[in-house]
Amino acid sequence: MTEEDPIPIPEPAFEGDFVINEVLSLESGEILVNPTLHYAIYGTLNADRSNAVLVCHALSGNALVGTWWPQLFLPGGLLDLERDCVIGINIFGSCYGSTGPGSIDPATGKLYGPTFPLISIRDIVRAQARLIEHLGIDKLKLAIGASIGGMQVLEWAILFPSRVARAISIGVAPLGAMGLGLNHLQRQSIMLDPAWQGGLYKPGQGPDGGLALARALGMISYKSVPLFEERFARRPNRYGDENPYLSTTAGQNGRFDIAGYLDYQGTNFIPRFDANSYISITRTMDIFDPVRAHESPFAAYACIESHLTLVGISTDWLFPPEDVRSLAAIIQAAGTRCDYREMASNHGHDAFLAEPEQLVRLLTPVFD
Amino acid sequence: MTEEDPIPIPEPAFEGDFVINEVLSLESGEILVNPTLHYAIYGTLNADRSNAVLVCHALSGNALVGTWWPQLFLPGGLLDLERDCVIGINIFGSCYGSTGPGSIDPATGKLYGPTFPLISIRDIVRAQARLIEHLGIDKLKLAIGASIGGMQVLEWAILFPSRVARAISIGVAPLGAMGLGLNHLQRQSIMLDPAWQGGLYKPGQGPDGGLALARALGMISYKSVPLFEERFARRPNRYGDENPYLSTTAGQNGRFDIAGYLDYQGTNFIPRFDANSYISITRTMDIFDPVRAHESPFAAYACIESHLTLVGISTDWLFPPEDVRSLAAIIQAAGTRCDYREMASNHGHDAFLAEPEQLVRLLTPVFD
Repeated sequence: MTEEDPIPIPEPAFEGDFVINEVLSLESGEILVNPTLHYAIYGTLNADRSNAVLVCHALSGNALVGTWWPQLFLPGGLLDLERDCVIGINIFGSCYGSTGPGSIDPATGKLYGPTFPLISIRDIVRAQARLIEHLGIDKLKLAIGASIGGMQVLEWAILFPSRVARAISIGVAPLGAMGLGLNHLQRQSIMLDPAWQGGLYKPGQGPDGGLALARALGMISYKSVPLFEERFARRPNRYGDENPYLSTTAGQNGRFDIAGYLDYQGTNFIPRFDANSYISITRTMDIFDPVRAHESPFAAYACIESHLTLVGISTDWLFPPEDVRSLAAIIQAAGTRCDYREMASNHGHDAFLAEPEQLVRLLTPVFD
Repeated sequence: MTEEDPIPIPEPAFEGDFVINEVLSLESGEILVNPTLHYAIYGTLNADRSNAVLVCHALSGNALVGTWWPQLFLPGGLLDLERDCVIGINIFGSCYGSTGPGSIDPATGKLYGPTFPLISIRDIVRAQARLIEHLGIDKLKLAIGASIGGMQVLEWAILFPSRVARAISIGVAPLGAMGLGLNHLQRQSIMLDPAWQGGLYKPGQGPDGGLALARALGMISYKSVPLFEERFARRPNRYGDENPYLSTTAGQNGRFDIAGYLDYQGTNFIPRFDANSYISITRTMDIFDPVRAHESPFAAYACIESHLTLVGISTDWLFPPEDVRSLAAIIQAAGTRCDYREMASNHGHDAFLAEPEQLVRLLTPVFD
């Protein structure tokens, strides 16, 4: 397949909502009343419902797995809709259909906004398990995800040992201090924008500038020094007529190419994401720690029955490959079958989206 | 010397202003009319004025070298005020006495603010040379500096080959794409703050929040993953009673330790720096390229007569050590005496301030 060929985007067989008709207790001590999970299904469940694959999404993803990870559906990819039934579930906190800050709080009849409770990965996975049960699926054939998606996979393997046969978690471990710092400054960027108004902005009147800056800073953390060097070096912005070596009023122009790229990525993000969701999900990402609430790493990991694979990315500095490798070693030390593989990529954390072909090769065959 | 012993801060023998009474042409094509250089002198010039050492400062530094690099003056350090006459000169664009955005533009009688022209390292060094000449110094015994200070040292060696005997440039090379991106987002942080008002804020009413966020982001770029991991890991903020695992209205609290640290560094910076100066100097840093306006690297570097030392810092990702090493190799290839040394430090770019003792050991003896 050459770059010119468009990658076919599979169509979901179903896209809709699942409402959990009860009061869901969260790890934070708070509750969600009758929360909604928005989900999509690709392909068809077989008669014994043994062909279900759960694909978990990352920060800005959604239930439509086929849209953001289409390469996994290509012939020779990990997923085959003649064989598999692929399920994507939007996470709590998101702005793509599941309950989040943009939803109505049944307790007040108003938007949650900044009062949306802190959601943990465990909260998300527990809710997903309800939906999987509702679909009549006793056991997932495979759960796979990268970044926040990989966090969900790991939590699935821990919380529901008998319900996941194969689990693949990509580019993830509990965030280190640098990652926590970068996420914090992204939230601060949003809060610096006066339009944020403590999170009480009206829909469509959000802190666009702050959200764009947060996204641009996020891009810094998702990419790598060598990738930026290769793509942008010290060249002036490739669009427009900007000269970094000339004075410009208030320094607004005269950008280098990397600056033009970051600004573009930021602006591009505004119509497709919500600032309170960004704050909510980055906090969910921050607090991921699968050992928390267990007595020890052994207690957390020894129960896993899935065959687990962790994938590190060589130039990822948000989730350094050393951290992923260490996590695999700790899980192995608990007696759990867990192998570690590494993508050799210049793309940094984003490699799972930027080089899916390599990822597929690295993971094939998925089942042994 | 233990950490408990306070490091003596040397007193300058002189601190004052030098006004260049003419119209200074800048590389950008603009001018500065009668600009001021604020400078400080430590120790005394000897009879033949052969003991002058120029210490060039970085982004947030100033002419008072003894205040921010006191370890260099300790017995066994690089500088000895019985022997050396140490000169510090505040750079254009700064808010510590030399002409900058907070100065009055003689053409309008008003503050320069955002109309302050783009200053290059070459502009700064040319003006410094006037002051050194004014002091009756034909040749500097040593020019030393780190970060933007190191840029000045390199430019001194190129522009005035016969006027610098020994030159030491630490932790610096032309910024790569990642560094350009990080600086850009710091300026964007300032500009996102409504108090910035296009740079036309009144003194004392500047964009404090934006400046603090810029500084916090700067700290990310000056430090390193291993240092943050060692100091902060995933611990909650050490001050106050914050729990990252609980919901907090608008996510303002519940910080991890790294977030508390970054916020503190940002807030702490507000009273000691000016936002327009921050924008101005980071742009000066961005456009540093000693080869620009020369026909080739050879043409730029072959003229150097100083014995030049470049120092890289092992964990510096703003100015990666590979970039500094490559620069040294290019300079050597031009036939210039240039050695490369490397600090092994977890401190990232800031190592020159955080581990000055190691730096002194690495550089001693300075003269051979």
